[in-house]
Amino acid sequence: MADLFICLDIGGSKILGAIMNEKDEILCRVKKKTKPKLGRDAVDDRIKSVIHELMSSYGMDKKDLKAIGAGAPGVIDTKSGNVRIAPNMPWTDHPLRKIMEEEFQAPFVVGNDVNVGVLGEWKYGAARGYSNVVGIFMGTGIGGGIIIDGKLFTGSGSAGAEIGHMIINTEGPLCNCGQRGCLEAYSSKVAITRELKAGIEMGIPTVLKDVLKGKDEVIRSNDLKKAVLRGDQLATSTLRRAAYYLAAGIGNLINIFNPEIVILGGGVVEALEDEVLSTVKSNISRFAWSHMLEQTQIKAAQLKDDAVLYGARALISETLGY
Amino acid sequence: MADLFICLDIGGSKILGAIMNEKDEILCRVKKKTKPKLGRDAVDDRIKSVIHELMSSYGMDKKDLKAIGAGAPGVIDTKSGNVRIAPNMPWTDHPLRKIMEEEFQAPFVVGNDVNVGVLGEWKYGAARGYSNVVGIFMGTGIGGGIIIDGKLFTGSGSAGAEIGHMIINTEGPLCNCGQRGCLEAYSSKVAITRELKAGIEMGIPTVLKDVLKGKDEVIRSNDLKKAVLRGDQLATSTLRRAAYYLAAGIGNLINIFNPEIVILGGGVVEALEDEVLSTVKSNISRFAWSHMLEQTQIKAAQLKDDAVLYGARALISETLGY
Repeated sequence: MADLFICLDIGGSKILGAIMNEKDEILCRVKKKTKPKLGRDAVDDRIKSVIHELMSSYGMDKKDLKAIGAGAPGVIDTKSGNVRIAPNMPWTDHPLRKIMEEEFQAPFVVGNDVNVGVLGEWKYGAARGYSNVVGIFMGTGIGGGIIIDGKLFTGSGSAGAEIGHMIINTEGPLCNCGQRGCLEAYSSKVAITRELKAGIEMGIPTVLKDVLKGKDEVIRSNDLKKAVLRGDQLATSTLRRAAYYLAAGIGNLINIFNPEIVILGGGVVEALEDEVLSTVKSNISRFAWSHMLEQTQIKAAQLKDDAVLYGARALISETLGY
Repeated sequence: MADLFICLDIGGSKILGAIMNEKDEILCRVKKKTKPKLGRDAVDDRIKSVIHELMSSYGMDKKDLKAIGAGAPGVIDTKSGNVRIAPNMPWTDHPLRKIMEEEFQAPFVVGNDVNVGVLGEWKYGAARGYSNVVGIFMGTGIGGGIIIDGKLFTGSGSAGAEIGHMIINTEGPLCNCGQRGCLEAYSSKVAITRELKAGIEMGIPTVLKDVLKGKDEVIRSNDLKKAVLRGDQLATSTLRRAAYYLAAGIGNLINIFNPEIVILGGGVVEALEDEVLSTVKSNISRFAWSHMLEQTQIKAAQLKDDAVLYGARALISETLGY
């Protein structure tokens, strides 16, 4: 008999699942589309089927399943395992833990995906060995996670650490959330795409003109990377602007949290690590005090697409003790 | 034999001292000017003399002195009791604890004055009974303190919680600290004074013209209060502007910390509580998410000038256990 763990990264577009053993090795993976538009029951079924497929493809005995851990989007009450609300998901006050524990007869723990990703980086990745960590993920939106004294911090209602919605300009551009001037309105892929499209409309030449033409979605990190590496001016200046404002957000967090390390992850950082980090580092002294900066490292995240899976494993161990 | 505590509020202009008993009653008080320009040894002597005067005027036996607690300005390493740096004080890497313990042969604990004031409000004042608290003090500068899970949070280098230097406008006005657009550059008395003087120079009529004439210092909270209560337009609009930006800062802190309560204190709030709180409350929904706001109370601090004294008592009990 073995102690096995199932770890899930539940996202708006796909569900990643993995079986991990006691040595924190990934033994088996399954990936499935989320299809949130099919509604909440269908999404629950798809999550269940990822777990069932993992167990059957690995030939796993049900009694070897020690616990299931998950990262999921939205505001999640980690104590009850309820998702209070989640953007792009058919979830409002959704009792995810109850549903999964009934199906699998094993403990199920869940946290906000970005929080869980930072937990993964702290336990297995770039922030290993530190007690006070700020993690920022630069993707479609800007998410964050905070470790204080070796514990994930989420505030009294488990809804805190909304780093992306820290306002860095009170009269700044409108954010998806309805506020103005949030960090997310400057440094997310949504914001980058908005700037690029504005540039294209002004007639600024760019290799991204055809890539973005007629498309509603945000730019893919890889397309942005290709354009920047080719020296495209609009792409480069837009990325630098996003990273400059990211430095402002990081500066605030350093002055508030006085962390030992800030880790930067997410699609844009994975694609353009050197460019983002160099712009952040060359501007950060404008936004954070020098005696704080001296104590703080700024590094890229390490676990990439596996951050939430490893974080789910860490969440199991932090919450349940194994 | 009694267990007595000496509590100190060491400020740039005055040192307040009090003897407190086990029931947390203040038995005796002494107040003395700090005179920081006399240099570090003189300031140490003045702190010592406050303690000696307290003991002699109360007729206190040296063996009844259980511990000394203090709040002091600047960046303080609470573990070592060293002041790393303090504005307006002759202190750089100053071993305050060592000096005081040698003199009085009793444990000495010290923390940043605003942090300690928030600790006082949490243990004895407006934030009693809450576990997650953000405190903001609107005085000459903007200071803050954060309680997380019932513990004072100061970051890994004890230098965090620099709420006043959170940037709310990346291109905003220059702050004393050298950054731009800090909350302190909008909502402190320094900022309020700057706005008032600019208004006077523009020829805007105000009852504060003579009050501020030729003076370098920041406006006194009471003078501001008198002008606002008389309906002075420049004073009123300047105060509202400061409180509006304070709301922006509070909103960020709510989205990050998801606290149960935000307490507002400091000279301006003490003088103009209704005006500051009503402006904050009517603007805060622009800067914080509604589901966070629903969980957060915003209240005035209660302990006024005694916040740091009571906080020093709380610091003794949190650090030393009695």
